[in-house]
Amino acid sequence: MTGLKNDRLLRALLRQPVDRTPVWMMRQAGRYLPEYRASRAQAGSFMDLCTNPELACEVTLQPLRRYPMDAAILFSDILTIPDAMGLGLYFEEGEGPRFRKPVDSAADIEALAVVNSAQDLSYVMDAVRTIRRELNGSVPLIGFSGSPWTLATYMVEGGSSKDFRKVKAFAFNQPELMHQLLSVLADSVADYLRCQIEAGAQVVQIFDTWGGALGHAAYRDFSLSYMTRVISQLPRESEGRRVPVILFTKNGGQWLEAMVDSGADCLGLDWTTDLAGARRRVGTAVSLQGNMDPTMLYASPTRIREEVASVLAGFGQGSGHVFNLGHGVTPEVNPDHVGAFVEAVQELSPQYHENG
Amino acid sequence: MTGLKNDRLLRALLRQPVDRTPVWMMRQAGRYLPEYRASRAQAGSFMDLCTNPELACEVTLQPLRRYPMDAAILFSDILTIPDAMGLGLYFEEGEGPRFRKPVDSAADIEALAVVNSAQDLSYVMDAVRTIRRELNGSVPLIGFSGSPWTLATYMVEGGSSKDFRKVKAFAFNQPELMHQLLSVLADSVADYLRCQIEAGAQVVQIFDTWGGALGHAAYRDFSLSYMTRVISQLPRESEGRRVPVILFTKNGGQWLEAMVDSGADCLGLDWTTDLAGARRRVGTAVSLQGNMDPTMLYASPTRIREEVASVLAGFGQGSGHVFNLGHGVTPEVNPDHVGAFVEAVQELSPQYHENG
Repeated sequence: MTGLKNDRLLRALLRQPVDRTPVWMMRQAGRYLPEYRASRAQAGSFMDLCTNPELACEVTLQPLRRYPMDAAILFSDILTIPDAMGLGLYFEEGEGPRFRKPVDSAADIEALAVVNSAQDLSYVMDAVRTIRRELNGSVPLIGFSGSPWTLATYMVEGGSSKDFRKVKAFAFNQPELMHQLLSVLADSVADYLRCQIEAGAQVVQIFDTWGGALGHAAYRDFSLSYMTRVISQLPRESEGRRVPVILFTKNGGQWLEAMVDSGADCLGLDWTTDLAGARRRVGTAVSLQGNMDPTMLYASPTRIREEVASVLAGFGQGSGHVFNLGHGVTPEVNPDHVGAFVEAVQELSPQYHENG
Repeated sequence: MTGLKNDRLLRALLRQPVDRTPVWMMRQAGRYLPEYRASRAQAGSFMDLCTNPELACEVTLQPLRRYPMDAAILFSDILTIPDAMGLGLYFEEGEGPRFRKPVDSAADIEALAVVNSAQDLSYVMDAVRTIRRELNGSVPLIGFSGSPWTLATYMVEGGSSKDFRKVKAFAFNQPELMHQLLSVLADSVADYLRCQIEAGAQVVQIFDTWGGALGHAAYRDFSLSYMTRVISQLPRESEGRRVPVILFTKNGGQWLEAMVDSGADCLGLDWTTDLAGARRRVGTAVSLQGNMDPTMLYASPTRIREEVASVLAGFGQGSGHVFNLGHGVTPEVNPDHVGAFVEAVQELSPQYHENG
């Protein structure tokens, strides 16, 4: 038993009755909070913050001190696995992540081995254990990883990309080699998430940030199939409870039916997808997470509340909805607007669970 | 009568029988062609090229000299209307378009008037007439405009944007003012396209590049409804033939059913949408244009040919498909690969029209 005081998230992910819709925010531990910026300055670089379990725990807990969130999410980066593979992750101020040694040849791929997360990413597991201890059963902890395809895009492009021409040309011209890379990544991601679960993660989310840049057939071949492979390798129970898996493909709203077959318990939706339509399409196969436009947090608290009401009405009556943004909260958001957002979910959602 | 020698495009857009699937490419007159780069250097700035009817005609015709395209598309920019409104369009090398005087207040919006295209954008109409004369009936000429919402994003953000927070916050917080801006833009776009048709454009396409950044409800309110307003004002016949309208919302694959009601004859699809599924969804209401991933042009000619075969098979038997990329061709593409692409469509598509 987990002895969780608030298990709304776990229950909603498994479509079990809840008193209100649980809520958390992607990137809830982040730059929009002044206390985060202070911890970041204290740590040094972004990776110094990720690799320091005490500080990673501190920033993970910061949003929970301000807002009644129904979950904590491990503070880390999606690119820890390629970093552990020796590619040399670094961040330039104002730029996205970059790798010192991108994957550039067949020999580079041959040289990659499945990451032993317990050993090579022990700082992440230390952070998970520290956070669990400090949470003390208040809310569940979500672990996460980037999807194999998403990791591959950064590894081959050497950083962020506008059109992914390098990694796509590679996938189109040398599919066997790309499948070899994705296989190593999938087994690494599976081991990484398994270790996070063993260290105390009670939910895991796979962030497929760039699967939606692929065509529909390429998405299935190069992204979805490897997320399915990851999920098939995960322990699905820990501490006597099921460990739900959330699959979030940004820009993947056209492919929900295919994603259902991945074995995920929940599909994350970005804000372009009509939640009511999504619920009809997936039926009772999975729960849904999302999906307010994160830029709505730049609107007034009154407008934010209207939008929360609209999203809640979109899903409608019953359990199976986890409220979230459709992507991460952005750095310039006013923290008071986040407060208005969370409060609106808390106040407006109970009416959808009265027969629960 | 137009006396068109090749009217495949017009016929396919209206779902009339053709001998093979017509093909053209968004941005087919562009930087991937060395002769384009030469004309660009000759002109001076990008806007110097757009505003010079002879040079605009020259670059419009360049791809047709290399490839057996089934259409020419006017060479111009999507932001000519806000430029004509006095916002001062300019381009920084390596950056996107920018405005010297972005729309920043209610007063800025109050000051905007519907553009008189015949007068203020006469250089565009001169280019259309010049191109029609030079085409001499070989293939039809496509005119175009940015969608009202897409124009508004650049006008409010002052240029390109990653998350459109400024224009979205404006739309969320002051919807009446945004509707006022979009109304002026819609009427300007309608007048602009009408003038292009009167000058000789035989098809028009509305480029809704950023409608897909909106949520599903906001898309309907702020983008689709204004494209519908534009289409309702267009002359639908010229030179004795129907002037088909193509509506292309990038990232709009989830909303095809709603787009059908816009009055467009054809919907453009990006590469994330399954063409077979799209055809089932729209039925016989509209034709479809697209949708090969433009990065496929970085793959080998053999792989490109396979992909063309797959897209053709996706649409299947019969007319109603215009082959295109799912977005514009990019500057670093090898012109020989474009040749392989067009040749593949020519060679592989007749089998889908044998009972036509």
